[in-house]
Amino acid sequence: MNKTQTKEKILNCGAELIHEKGFNNTGISEVLKLAGVPKGSFYFYFESKDDFGLALIDRYVELVRQIHRENGVHLEKEPDKRLFAFFDSLVEFMNRTGYRKGCPLGNLVQEMSDLNENFRTKLESVFTDGERFVRKCLKGAVETGVFRKDLDMEMLPGFLLNSYQGAVMMCKLHKSEEPYRQFRHYAESIIKE
Amino acid sequence: MNKTQTKEKILNCGAELIHEKGFNNTGISEVLKLAGVPKGSFYFYFESKDDFGLALIDRYVELVRQIHRENGVHLEKEPDKRLFAFFDSLVEFMNRTGYRKGCPLGNLVQEMSDLNENFRTKLESVFTDGERFVRKCLKGAVETGVFRKDLDMEMLPGFLLNSYQGAVMMCKLHKSEEPYRQFRHYAESIIKE
Repeated sequence: MNKTQTKEKILNCGAELIHEKGFNNTGISEVLKLAGVPKGSFYFYFESKDDFGLALIDRYVELVRQIHRENGVHLEKEPDKRLFAFFDSLVEFMNRTGYRKGCPLGNLVQEMSDLNENFRTKLESVFTDGERFVRKCLKGAVETGVFRKDLDMEMLPGFLLNSYQGAVMMCKLHKSEEPYRQFRHYAESIIKE
Repeated sequence: MNKTQTKEKILNCGAELIHEKGFNNTGISEVLKLAGVPKGSFYFYFESKDDFGLALIDRYVELVRQIHRENGVHLEKEPDKRLFAFFDSLVEFMNRTGYRKGCPLGNLVQEMSDLNENFRTKLESVFTDGERFVRKCLKGAVETGVFRKDLDMEMLPGFLLNSYQGAVMMCKLHKSEEPYRQFRHYAESIIKE
């Protein structure tokens, strides 16, 4: 493997371990062992564990996008269907693994927001992008007449995304899709005509 | 200090550190150092780090109850006001510390649900109690005619509690009360007559 491939492998193995165990609970040596990369060569690929963590956030954004693609979010032409396919995707992914792991980005929000300002600002921009996506779908579905015309486009996207994160977290606690089913029910009751 | 007092001190210091840094990211030795208890005496007080962690959940339940008491939740005679005082309490507590730390029980849900089944089942029963409290307030406020009569008492308490947890988590990310303000707005719009 060349340097780029090895770096990719370290990131993929790190993403896998950290999704389940958390960032601070996962040792660099454990990641390197899983990747089959000699101990001690970590700093050849990353400047620091922080540098690795920030690259990991990009990797998780890519993972979540991939989960969305596999669920056909991008194929939904109608904005209301696109929005709910977006919400459904991760929960269907969790369903296949016994409601384990949850949202890798939400996990990092909970774990790292107070511990590392670089993580926090990067995660904040990821969730701002998520809000933008939700807002775009909502606006589109208002235009096509599927969603209520009086939706508050300032407050609602954030509320939906944050409630969704709460639901995903509680699917992990209850090992059940029930919290998501409740979220979906009330999300629809708020936004549908 | 006698054995009970020392155990209390270890738990209080552990609760403080772990609220900020997480369970797996906090070493026993660090807790003992803060408590001023000799290293190596931990197992005189607790059977294991797990045993300590489970006692810690009880300590956090007590901390959250204390935050509610300080905010006068128990003094609110009207069930609708009691419900919103309950939700407001922790966010006002967070406001005083720059939206740090978040809900100590929600943090453990996110961190520990997949890593320790004893933690998960204990946390699940804590959140089931929380749902029961929310349901009781909702039912009371329906009876007094303040909340809509057609509220779904199976789904709504869980939805509100889970959305609330999502909002608290996002207050921690954005270092702002805005996610809570959004939660409160939509919670009221769903339940009020």
